[in-house]
Amino acid sequence: MVNYQERLNRTFAALVDPTRRAILARLEREHAASVSELARPFAIKLPAVMKHLDVLDDAGLITRSKVGRTVTVRLSSRPIEEAMNWLRRYERFWSGSLDRLAAYAESKEAKARKSPR
Amino acid sequence: MVNYQERLNRTFAALVDPTRRAILARLEREHAASVSELARPFAIKLPAVMKHLDVLDDAGLITRSKVGRTVTVRLSSRPIEEAMNWLRRYERFWSGSLDRLAAYAESKEAKARKSPR
Repeated sequence: MVNYQERLNRTFAALVDPTRRAILARLEREHAASVSELARPFAIKLPAVMKHLDVLDDAGLITRSKVGRTVTVRLSSRPIEEAMNWLRRYERFWSGSLDRLAAYAESKEAKARKSPR
Repeated sequence: MVNYQERLNRTFAALVDPTRRAILARLEREHAASVSELARPFAIKLPAVMKHLDVLDDAGLITRSKVGRTVTVRLSSRPIEEAMNWLRRYERFWSGSLDRLAAYAESKEAKARKSPR
């Protein structure tokens, strides 16, 4: 069983490559696609696409199922959910920055009202 | 100017390493820390910490400011916000899966009510 930190390492490493992100984005839109369909839009050879799929599979971001000679690829969103949950704490940080900015603006405004020129 | 895809590449690459994630998590809690404070909890040498800070800085995830001999590091959350926005479309996917599951359960229940044994 891979631990939490190791799962995050793999998820973020899988997301570094724009081709892999494009594959995920397509699976999100279409729910399932064959390997050859996935490979079509890219200017890279099929074995290179297969390698990208291996990385995505190792990170648990896709599942592959074979029927006859066709491998169907599907998105598996659990690791993305975990990555989002890790990132989410920073949402508090940047919305906190906005809150502080709003508080500052309000205190400025209050001060201006108290001492009108 | 670095483009959107290149910024995502850098952000996700910066997030791959657990030491860098720990540094970001600490800066999120404490808002600012000196380089030597940041280095203290890690079993790695200062130059290794400096390299991690360079990667975080290149990705725009931190800012560094020097006063005298002290370098203060702060979190810069904009790239994380951008990464979250990229990941967010998958939220629709997994909450969509839950919606479909709920709809399926409801239709089963409705059918069961219509044809009681």
